[in-house]
Amino acid sequence: MKKEKITFNIDKEKDFSRWYTEIVQKAELGDIRYNVKGFLVFQPWSVLSMEKMFKHMEKNLQRKGHKPYWFPTLIPEKNFMLESEHVKGFTPSVFWVTEAGDGKLEEKYALRPTSETAFYQMLSLWIRSYKDLPYKTYQRANIFRYETKNTRPFLRSREFHWIETHCAHSSLEDAKKQVKEDMETTKEVLHDIYGLPFIFFERPQWDKFPGAYFTYAADVLNPDGKVVQQPSTHLISQHFSKVFNIKYKDKDEQEKLCFMTCYGPAISRIFASVIIIHGDNKGLVFPWKIAPKQVVIVPISQDKEILKKADELKKQLEEKEIDVEIDSSDKSPGDKFYFWEMKGIPLRIDLGRKEIAKKELTIFRRDLNKKETIKEKDIIEEIDRLAKEYDKNLIKKADSLFNNRIIDVDKKENLKAALESGKIARVGFCSLEMDGAKCAEVVEKDFQATVRGTKLEKEKVSDKINKCPICGKKAKEVVYIARQY
Amino acid sequence: MKKEKITFNIDKEKDFSRWYTEIVQKAELGDIRYNVKGFLVFQPWSVLSMEKMFKHMEKNLQRKGHKPYWFPTLIPEKNFMLESEHVKGFTPSVFWVTEAGDGKLEEKYALRPTSETAFYQMLSLWIRSYKDLPYKTYQRANIFRYETKNTRPFLRSREFHWIETHCAHSSLEDAKKQVKEDMETTKEVLHDIYGLPFIFFERPQWDKFPGAYFTYAADVLNPDGKVVQQPSTHLISQHFSKVFNIKYKDKDEQEKLCFMTCYGPAISRIFASVIIIHGDNKGLVFPWKIAPKQVVIVPISQDKEILKKADELKKQLEEKEIDVEIDSSDKSPGDKFYFWEMKGIPLRIDLGRKEIAKKELTIFRRDLNKKETIKEKDIIEEIDRLAKEYDKNLIKKADSLFNNRIIDVDKKENLKAALESGKIARVGFCSLEMDGAKCAEVVEKDFQATVRGTKLEKEKVSDKINKCPICGKKAKEVVYIARQY
Repeated sequence: MKKEKITFNIDKEKDFSRWYTEIVQKAELGDIRYNVKGFLVFQPWSVLSMEKMFKHMEKNLQRKGHKPYWFPTLIPEKNFMLESEHVKGFTPSVFWVTEAGDGKLEEKYALRPTSETAFYQMLSLWIRSYKDLPYKTYQRANIFRYETKNTRPFLRSREFHWIETHCAHSSLEDAKKQVKEDMETTKEVLHDIYGLPFIFFERPQWDKFPGAYFTYAADVLNPDGKVVQQPSTHLISQHFSKVFNIKYKDKDEQEKLCFMTCYGPAISRIFASVIIIHGDNKGLVFPWKIAPKQVVIVPISQDKEILKKADELKKQLEEKEIDVEIDSSDKSPGDKFYFWEMKGIPLRIDLGRKEIAKKELTIFRRDLNKKETIKEKDIIEEIDRLAKEYDKNLIKKADSLFNNRIIDVDKKENLKAALESGKIARVGFCSLEMDGAKCAEVVEKDFQATVRGTKLEKEKVSDKINKCPICGKKAKEVVYIARQY
Repeated sequence: MKKEKITFNIDKEKDFSRWYTEIVQKAELGDIRYNVKGFLVFQPWSVLSMEKMFKHMEKNLQRKGHKPYWFPTLIPEKNFMLESEHVKGFTPSVFWVTEAGDGKLEEKYALRPTSETAFYQMLSLWIRSYKDLPYKTYQRANIFRYETKNTRPFLRSREFHWIETHCAHSSLEDAKKQVKEDMETTKEVLHDIYGLPFIFFERPQWDKFPGAYFTYAADVLNPDGKVVQQPSTHLISQHFSKVFNIKYKDKDEQEKLCFMTCYGPAISRIFASVIIIHGDNKGLVFPWKIAPKQVVIVPISQDKEILKKADELKKQLEEKEIDVEIDSSDKSPGDKFYFWEMKGIPLRIDLGRKEIAKKELTIFRRDLNKKETIKEKDIIEEIDRLAKEYDKNLIKKADSLFNNRIIDVDKKENLKAALESGKIARVGFCSLEMDGAKCAEVVEKDFQATVRGTKLEKEKVSDKINKCPICGKKAKEVVYIARQY
């Protein structure tokens, strides 16, 4: 542990961009000084949390019947070429492996920017009969995209860490069910465990995943009023199963094409949202279940009795699978308090002679930035209670902030003000077919914003927002407009 | 679940190569049909087990103070060029990324064949003072090597999955301690959890990691008498810390160079040894703690009462974190038995009306291929007892097989016979300095075998093996000779 005093105090709402850059550095989440542009070194404090995030997501997927795979990172160029939309959408952002040892390779290999074309050729070998369906897979993987936009740690890196699911179904109906299940998974994990509020949008036709019929994506809102696209789930066109020959023999003995779906929660990018949504002016605030460490014990002095008690408590908590850190460094208690608040550990136990004599524990809660006293003998039950309260608080706070930042906008003039005050605008919109694309272009050019899409359960056009604020035509859809990264 | 009948019966000892190829395919561990040569698709049955293997290894490392990182997969060519031994050793087996999008990149990037040169440049930024040392890191990562030898699933692939630790120390003594700790870790995880017997050898000078002073590596022995190199730990030359400028300010205010160590357990290759060491003629046998599923419940019929009881038992076991599968497919009980024995699940519960009426359970143990009856109400305690006995049996069996296959060899004439009967030869050897390399070359040429090295605790030359079997000179060292993959 370094001895230098660390204080952190940046107004997250007012100075969000600096807040983010500084906290990533001060809390040692990621280091951008690696000598390949756009590539981040993920440091222990983020990796410990993201490992837990992976665990929760994978457990949920496995419970729903997804089986884990590890596919090769390299995908032959020819696999991409099979589906024309996909090749157009992805090849501009592909890193290519062209040499090995001292020589040139006979063909070019992509570093996977996504793995449909890797999974699909194998699914075509594995799937035989209707009995094999649905065939539900996933993999945890590192993904490479040659981003031309500015990169930002965790939010957009040229290498990131995600889970991708790839499923094959016997009917369009089953495929749609899968898309719904993916959205439920997003709610169960991103909202209920990571504490992130979001809206799932059906993206407009002009903003789909290359090669998909429909794309649904969850948008999370940052304090600067920009949305971050989090997991998206896609109903893939049957053209894919055709070119990759993914067929099954149905009950009627006929060979039929499968319907494909995929879902891609990018854990390292979701981590950015966790940091952004829950953090405050003092630094990080981790949700309980994905905190790198959940409890820090700060012995008030180097007194042997205190250190012994700290060890005892640590062991007791670890038996209950709670991750505990003891800070027995030679820093002052005050410095330790600042440091661990900045690092976002949910609960801190301040341990001194007084506490030991009274058989009590003083617990600092990072959610309320407040102390509570509990009886030492009740430590397990009390920590359990506090952890539950803590998560509830975090989720409630995040939800209410989010809901307060959605605003109905009826006129072009009001759109700019809404967006500049960091809000998501709910508007009536002329059309979501390709002819609405023109109004969407105006939104992009004149407002530096994008049409995020419609909610899955389509909303009715109300009197207040019955005209498209761009072209003034009668509104057919309710869409949301926001700025994005 | 496919309905086709699966029987597996290959003599592992006599027909090892076929046994291995077939079991990888039949048990659906990995698929070699992916269209990039030498790259394997890792299937669920191996991934579930390897995820557990990662968990045990990472937990052990974290307990010993290693912090987790995720480094970029790409390493600039210039990083490799800094250390000449390293560049010679690794560049022939490197895949190179040279293009992105539509254009050529300004510099070439290696797909990491190992990550010293990535970690070291960052360690030079992070390490400041003697208080930062030892600096103990690790990462879980996929690794790429352009192997020119034949690839074999899990044993040698062009992409594999490992953990690499990289540590910096203030003294040679501390670095040596780390190497010892790495060996202990290997014992605690590979032997005590994965059930693998091995010997840790100090490799001869001519067979070190490129850029290391000393290399220590664990050899596991296959039934065909070939050894597989498993984790190795290396004491890296200070030339590395010099060229990467990894320095610390000591207590005396002087800047000093760090001593580096690294350790690389290749989980996907260790998985091969798990399969090979424990499997039998009927198929796989997984050690309890790393079995993809630990218990399979086979309902003897589709009777509702039986299926309900199966669900009940599953829930009961899952509460104790035991991984349970219920096979309620329409296969016959016999087919199910064959199938799950081939898949290597440690314990099987055969559940019929008779068992339910008697409140008893029939449990098949894959270690002894034998049935036992237990009382249903004692299921948790009994499964716990059986799991412990099971692992003990597996380890005992593997250890005794291994120990019986080490044989003292005094003469050249006997060496060939020893190696051909699948043994490791323990011999006296002239020298381990570079002048012993000639005899080692003879071993390679005439016997298609290699000198694996000496044990860490050097053994004394006994009367029986007091001469080098190759040159006939007086033996100075006791070394081991074996064939290898």
